[in-house]
Amino acid sequence: MDDVRNFRDETVGYCIEDMSVGMTARYARTVTEADIVLFAGVSGDHNPIHMNEVYAASTMFKGRIAHGFLSASLISTTIGNRLPGPGAIYLSQNLRFLAPVRVGDTVEARVTVTEVFPAKKRVALKTICFVGDKQVVDGDALVMVPTRG
Amino acid sequence: MDDVRNFRDETVGYCIEDMSVGMTARYARTVTEADIVLFAGVSGDHNPIHMNEVYAASTMFKGRIAHGFLSASLISTTIGNRLPGPGAIYLSQNLRFLAPVRVGDTVEARVTVTEVFPAKKRVALKTICFVGDKQVVDGDALVMVPTRG
Amino acid sequence: MDDVRNFRDETVGYCIEDMSVGMTARYARTVTEADIVLFAGVSGDHNPIHMNEVYAASTMFKGRIAHGFLSASLISTTIGNRLPGPGAIYLSQNLRFLAPVRVGDTVEARVTVTEVFPAKKRVALKTICFVGDKQVVDGDALVMVPTRG
Amino acid sequence: MDDVRNFRDETVGYCIEDMSVGMTARYARTVTEADIVLFAGVSGDHNPIHMNEVYAASTMFKGRIAHGFLSASLISTTIGNRLPGPGAIYLSQNLRFLAPVRVGDTVEARVTVTEVFPAKKRVALKTICFVGDKQVVDGDALVMVPTRG
Repeated sequence: MDDVRNFRDETVGYCIEDMSVGMTARYARTVTEADIVLFAGVSGDHNPIHMNEVYAASTMFKGRIAHGFLSASLISTTIGNRLPGPGAIYLSQNLRFLAPVRVGDTVEARVTVTEVFPAKKRVALKTICFVGDKQVVDGDALVMVPTRG
Repeated sequence: MDDVRNFRDETVGYCIEDMSVGMTARYARTVTEADIVLFAGVSGDHNPIHMNEVYAASTMFKGRIAHGFLSASLISTTIGNRLPGPGAIYLSQNLRFLAPVRVGDTVEARVTVTEVFPAKKRVALKTICFVGDKQVVDGDALVMVPTRG
Repeated sequence: MDDVRNFRDETVGYCIEDMSVGMTARYARTVTEADIVLFAGVSGDHNPIHMNEVYAASTMFKGRIAHGFLSASLISTTIGNRLPGPGAIYLSQNLRFLAPVRVGDTVEARVTVTEVFPAKKRVALKTICFVGDKQVVDGDALVMVPTRG
Repeated sequence: MDDVRNFRDETVGYCIEDMSVGMTARYARTVTEADIVLFAGVSGDHNPIHMNEVYAASTMFKGRIAHGFLSASLISTTIGNRLPGPGAIYLSQNLRFLAPVRVGDTVEARVTVTEVFPAKKRVALKTICFVGDKQVVDGDALVMVPTRG
């Protein structure tokens, strides 16, 4: 028998009535050189700290680092695909970049519901990213969530 | 007032001593289906509102929209490549998503210095995105900038 | 409180004990020109029926069509990400290509459990793809599924 | 026996009258991280076994593996571009996944004509993939081929 909220159908996310403080979701992936090249391609961000090893090796980072928005985009993925998932509308996202991410690092985004506003159909989320034990992104988001009605 | 410096060397950005309130930079590009497919690939965000026209047409958006972080990434590009440019370290970015962006829309990111903190080697930036006359992203950022010394 | 099978964690799929005949999952996306270009890039399949509009317009298809494996890959996505999901091992996939898919078509893969073999930790799946009401791919798959133990 | 025809015109493939049992063709390429990221983008398959090294290292595979359909797509490439080549219509493909493929592996698809059905304008093909001496995909295909007339 299928999951009652039918998450096997990728077009269905949570409704506001289903959400409560403490719900959590996560999404992780390993950053590859290809990710960085493709992100540079779609964003236009060809900063040498991401693309030029000779330059990057001469900086305090001692080598190329990934775009901060590449890590942060995993937060967006977690919100849009998992919690609350499809149907939610992204209202705002605050980000603090705490530490660099490098090729080969596995970044895990973690999203946790911190507040539910049923009347406004909104949830507040804590949104953080880790590489192993090290937090690399801190932040919070506000999302509008559909009602069951 | 727009910047007058010559960025022929893409590895050289502004130093904190060169920065003043009101300096501005912009970067625009047209969002294509390819951008959305590639952004989905690097972020893992295959939310049907971005990828499935049949689903998206049934929503309030009446068709596929681009990932919010795709538009927002143009802010990062503007900061990292133009103002302050290479050498700057992204500390934080706050984003509010005001309106959807669609394939064919040309998104322009505009970054303006709102405050300079010489002792802390930081600048505050207003960061907004427009499609034509319509503002689609609002936000602000904090960046650390190198010194000349 | 989180989903008891914790599908907010993308690394967790179904175990064989949880599977029964009739369970179903689906995944749909709209085929874009970018999909075709990128698929050609990773597969090396630059057949003019996919890449050359002048040639393709002269054939019985009257224009470019998508690679059959591009549609079929949505079956793999549905199996690997949703039913049974992560942890499953793909043993075999039979495919029949019934009708062409074009740019702009939204292909929906549908996967249904047709048989469960607990002792062998395997499930048989019916795997089909539709564009609207038209079936474009027919097939079946065999997958090995982890046990709870 | 390998094909002796000159495929300088990439829009011209074999006709059914030209085909005989034992004809063979092959196509090989090295799987890169970029292939996997792009394949994830076009298929939507972000299964952590492909994308998340930390997760994948904890499985029986001891690290990320390529999508099975990425290897299998080389069969489609060989059929559509070489044997029979352009003009052929892919009717069916059966696949068995025998062993994982990793970044850096060079996968070779080998296609051999096993039966010719002139009246039905079809050929049956054995379709296999190797990494070095190790067979990673087994299968067979059925293809419709144009006539000279």
